[in-house]
Amino acid sequence: MFDRTIWWEGDDVVVIDQTKLPLEATTARWRTVADAAVGIATMEVRGAPLIGVAGAHGVALAMQADPEDLHGALAQLVATRPTAVNLRWGLERMAGALAPLAAADRAAAARALAQRIAAEDVTSCRAIGQAGLGLIRDAAEHLGRPVNIMTHCNAGWLAAVEHGTATAPVYAAHDAGIDLHVWVSETRPRNQGAALTTWELGQRGVPHTLVVDNAAGHLLRTGQVDLVLTGADRVAANGDAANKVGTYLKAVAAADCGVPFAIAAPASTFDARTPDGDGIVIEERDPDEVLVFAGTPVAPAGTSARNWGFDVTPHRLVDHYVTDRGLLTADELGAVLDAESGRATEAGA
Amino acid sequence: MFDRTIWWEGDDVVVIDQTKLPLEATTARWRTVADAAVGIATMEVRGAPLIGVAGAHGVALAMQADPEDLHGALAQLVATRPTAVNLRWGLERMAGALAPLAAADRAAAARALAQRIAAEDVTSCRAIGQAGLGLIRDAAEHLGRPVNIMTHCNAGWLAAVEHGTATAPVYAAHDAGIDLHVWVSETRPRNQGAALTTWELGQRGVPHTLVVDNAAGHLLRTGQVDLVLTGADRVAANGDAANKVGTYLKAVAAADCGVPFAIAAPASTFDARTPDGDGIVIEERDPDEVLVFAGTPVAPAGTSARNWGFDVTPHRLVDHYVTDRGLLTADELGAVLDAESGRATEAGA
Repeated sequence: MFDRTIWWEGDDVVVIDQTKLPLEATTARWRTVADAAVGIATMEVRGAPLIGVAGAHGVALAMQADPEDLHGALAQLVATRPTAVNLRWGLERMAGALAPLAAADRAAAARALAQRIAAEDVTSCRAIGQAGLGLIRDAAEHLGRPVNIMTHCNAGWLAAVEHGTATAPVYAAHDAGIDLHVWVSETRPRNQGAALTTWELGQRGVPHTLVVDNAAGHLLRTGQVDLVLTGADRVAANGDAANKVGTYLKAVAAADCGVPFAIAAPASTFDARTPDGDGIVIEERDPDEVLVFAGTPVAPAGTSARNWGFDVTPHRLVDHYVTDRGLLTADELGAVLDAESGRATEAGA
Repeated sequence: MFDRTIWWEGDDVVVIDQTKLPLEATTARWRTVADAAVGIATMEVRGAPLIGVAGAHGVALAMQADPEDLHGALAQLVATRPTAVNLRWGLERMAGALAPLAAADRAAAARALAQRIAAEDVTSCRAIGQAGLGLIRDAAEHLGRPVNIMTHCNAGWLAAVEHGTATAPVYAAHDAGIDLHVWVSETRPRNQGAALTTWELGQRGVPHTLVVDNAAGHLLRTGQVDLVLTGADRVAANGDAANKVGTYLKAVAAADCGVPFAIAAPASTFDARTPDGDGIVIEERDPDEVLVFAGTPVAPAGTSARNWGFDVTPHRLVDHYVTDRGLLTADELGAVLDAESGRATEAGA
């Protein structure tokens, strides 16, 4: 059983090899910075927070082998996922701390800082869990039966170090003995819900059921969902939230059915420099993710497809922002944003 | 190129073998009632209207071979899809017409009536096309650019004889020279959009693009859809409509974005005996449709899944009912229902 994505064993970094999930739960061992670079590039690790942490660990591996070549290590790692903001952030933080040091001091300092970056992620996710716990506890007391929570994609501990974002309140409530059940949307086209969220909930013993994305409306309309809880890739200053494509459909149906909709994200995901959702560029991905499943074409040869990775949910549909600064409404975000540097994050797949 | 699902060649019935789509466009030839029974049971033909027509054709094949054994033919055919209302209806209509006849007269009468039943379906779908054509023409004139129509599942000519229901206005507009483009939702879990709707639109030369079901919200929010047009499996007296699961999500998002939402269905789909959507039982199907794709598991072994085939869209979200009795609003349905027998239909997959 796993409940953490990355850790040290002696001088090696060990990660859950997410390319093998859900059919096989195995680890990959990184002995060198080259192992780390390959592991990040091939998505043994994925998810915005985890990619940043993994990059920092890669630098620490490099400093163990050749503390003189900080520049080479950074160059090798940053090239692995060129658009991942968190990777760049993690590497820059390592560079800033290590460059002033004598070579002899870098290995120990690098490992300590990589571990601190991982620990900060754990702390932030744990705070999100505590902020959301009250929502679930209130629902449980009000309902007098297990609380049904619907999520989307994987904003879980597999995308972070422990706890995750949208899953953190679920684990906090489960650990507090509150009866709950999670509806997992498969999350086409990459099926992160089916492959990853089911697996990580299963590892932690949280009751859950898989449904197709299309089933969300039926579940909401028939009273089978008490709370919709997703992550976010970027939240604009007014609270408009970009998240995995399909999130807006769940939010608008939840509003129509009177079911609360909540976004869970650390303060670093709130982007004060983007005034509203119209300013968020939506990544378009390879149409083959839509056209081919596990090597089998799903459509006639030559069919054209489009494949947007995210959509924007307007703040009027978001009842709660579950953050590491507490449970907030859209009107309260300003105070949080003012206290932050405004660093925006982008999620990996 | 095909634009019809079932036809006669000499004394044989030929159908498009839909089990081979979209990778292979081939036909199956039915020489005997046994061929027809196997073809219906193995879903060489599917879709509510087509199953009824196919059953009638099966009876005609039986009468060519052994006009004495009407009862045996009916029993063999009705067992193929026990829950298909249209199949029972088609067989009962054949039985009622043929039973009073002398055996020598049955073969010719059976073939004539089977062809009439097919022709009635074509006429009904053509009338739906004409009723919806105005909606698309008005949009084209107003917009001054190609009209973007989003559909769901396959309510196309592959489910009928020609034209289809939701696709009938699309083909009518295309044939009238109106520029349009169709967004095809893949329609998980059975992917009828990806496999069938793309194929049949391609056969008729209608521009179209495949997207995952999750993309509907992004397309609607960003002004890329001018009309959402789906079929229905059953419409209650107040206009609440049961259709393929996921339809409600499109309807509620369309309303949120100010995009018109229309249901296309023949009068026989309107069920005067069911007052509202709460009275429509939603079929639950095999969880393996969710858990396994083309033989590949999508979730960890032992994952539990639920799989509802349909959802209900409340009438307040339906702007237009596109019927073979014209373009109607929810308030106008009563008059249509009073003129009908109230026969409800159920769709095949």
